Amino acid sequence: MKFEAIAVENIPLIHAGDNLPSIICENIELQDRDIVIIASTVVAKAEGEIFRLEDITPGKISLEIAARTGRDARFIEAVLSRSGEVLVEKPFMLVTTLSGHTCVNAGIDESNIENGFLLYPPENPDASASRLGQELERLSGKKLSVIITDTNGRAFKIGQTGVAIGIYKIKPVKRWIGEKDLFGRDLEITEEAIADELAGAANLLMGEGAGGIPVVVIRGLDYYCDEETYIKEMYRPEELDIIKKGLRCLQKKS
Amino acid sequence: MKFEAIAVENIPLIHAGDNLPSIICENIELQDRDIVIIASTVVAKAEGEIFRLEDITPGKISLEIAARTGRDARFIEAVLSRSGEVLVEKPFMLVTTLSGHTCVNAGIDESNIENGFLLYPPENPDASASRLGQELERLSGKKLSVIITDTNGRAFKIGQTGVAIGIYKIKPVKRWIGEKDLFGRDLEITEEAIADELAGAANLLMGEGAGGIPVVVIRGLDYYCDEETYIKEMYRPEELDIIKKGLRCLQKKS
Repeated sequence: MKFEAIAVENIPLIHAGDNLPSIICENIELQDRDIVIIASTVVAKAEGEIFRLEDITPGKISLEIAARTGRDARFIEAVLSRSGEVLVEKPFMLVTTLSGHTCVNAGIDESNIENGFLLYPPENPDASASRLGQELERLSGKKLSVIITDTNGRAFKIGQTGVAIGIYKIKPVKRWIGEKDLFGRDLEITEEAIADELAGAANLLMGEGAGGIPVVVIRGLDYYCDEETYIKEMYRPEELDIIKKGLRCLQKKS
Repeated sequence: MKFEAIAVENIPLIHAGDNLPSIICENIELQDRDIVIIASTVVAKAEGEIFRLEDITPGKISLEIAARTGRDARFIEAVLSRSGEVLVEKPFMLVTTLSGHTCVNAGIDESNIENGFLLYPPENPDASASRLGQELERLSGKKLSVIITDTNGRAFKIGQTGVAIGIYKIKPVKRWIGEKDLFGRDLEITEEAIADELAGAANLLMGEGAGGIPVVVIRGLDYYCDEETYIKEMYRPEELDIIKKGLRCLQKKS
C-alpha cells in the first residue's frame, strides 16, 4: 500500500480570469481517484480576489481595534469584512471566518502580491473546489477529488502546516466506526482528519516564497466520494469548543 | 518533484523487547534520505511501556479530579505521572506532558491492549527515535531520519491527525528565511512544521483498529539533517501561548 504526491510543475503566475483547470490539465495527466490539491492563493487570484488597501474605508470598530493594536485600520477592516467573530486581537488577529474557519487575519494575505494590494481567500472555498473539480473532471474524463488549501499556524506549537479550506468529492473527516481493535473489542469512533492530512502532505511540495508549487496531485489513495461534501463538517460545534471559550474568557478579562 | 509514502507491511504484533529496527529492515529495503515514520504504540510496546491499572494507587489529587470528573482515579494517576500541567479536566483531560507535548491523557492509551492494561507513550520520544534511528542506519547502511508519531485532536476542528512526538536527524520545523517572494520582496520568516506534515501524511496509510500499519517510509524528500534535533523546538514558548492562557483563565473561573 502506498501513495505518491506529485508536484504539478510549470504552472505560470496566475491572473484574474485564468482557466486553472485547463492550465492544470496541460501540465499533468490525471488519473481516476486522483486528489488535486490547489493552493488557495492561485484560486483567489484566478477569481480576482485582489483588493487595494487604498480603496478600503475603515469603519468605527476597525479604527478602535487599530488604536488598540497599532495595525493598519484598512487591513483590519478587510479582515472584519470576512469574519464572524474576533477571538484574539493581539499580537495577531485570530478570527472565525464567515465560512467557519478559525485562522489569523481571516486568511487575507499581502505577502504575495504587489505592494498595496491584498489577496483575499476564495469567498466560498467549497463552491470554488466544486467548480474547479467539475471542470477538471470534464476536461480529463476522470473521477477526481479537489482540496483547496491554505497554510495556518496551530495551537501549542510553532510553525505552519497545510490545511484544507474547501473540498469537492472527498469527506473532510474519515470515520472509523464499529471496527474491532487488535483484540476484538469495539473501537471507539475515531475520526481521522484526512483532508487536513492531505493538505499537509501536499504542502511539503508546495513550498513558500518564489519557488512555490501551487498544485500537487496525490495518487494511490481511495477517498473519492461521489456526493456533496462540506468542509464545515470539520469545524468543532461552538458549544463543544473549549478553546474558543478560553479565548473569550481572556478577552473579558482584558 | 515528488515523494512516495510506502506502508511497511507484515510488521507482526510487537512485544516488549522486540527488535523493531531489525523487523523493519526485514520488511523494506531502505534508501538514503528515507524518513522512517513509526507509530508510538509499537515503540512503547517494544520498550515495555505497559502497566496494569490494578497496580496503580491514586494519590490525593487524582482522587479529587476523579470525584470532579467521574473518571477512574487510577487512570488519572497514570496521566498525572506523565504530566507537567493539567489545562482541562473535563470533558477530557488535556495536559502538557513532561516532554512538552500538549495532548489528551498525556498520550496514555487503553484501546489497543488487553483489558486492564494501559500503554504509556515512550518516556523520551526523541531518545527512542535516536536509538531506533541509529540501529536502522547501522543495519541498512543508509542515512535515515526517524519520526515517532501519535494521533491527536486539534483546536477548532474535529478529527485527529498524525503528529510528531519524537525525531531523529530531521528538523521539526523548516525555516524559510530571507527568501524573496514572487515580487522580490523579503519574505517574512515562515516556519513550516514539516515533522507534523510528514506524520499526517504517514497516518493516511497507518489506519486505525485492527488494520493498522505501524511503520511508513516517506521517500523522495530532502530533509536529512546530520545533527542533534529536538522535538521541543516545536513547542510554543509558554509566554507566547495565548491558548494556554485562555484555558487557564477558564479554570480560574470554574
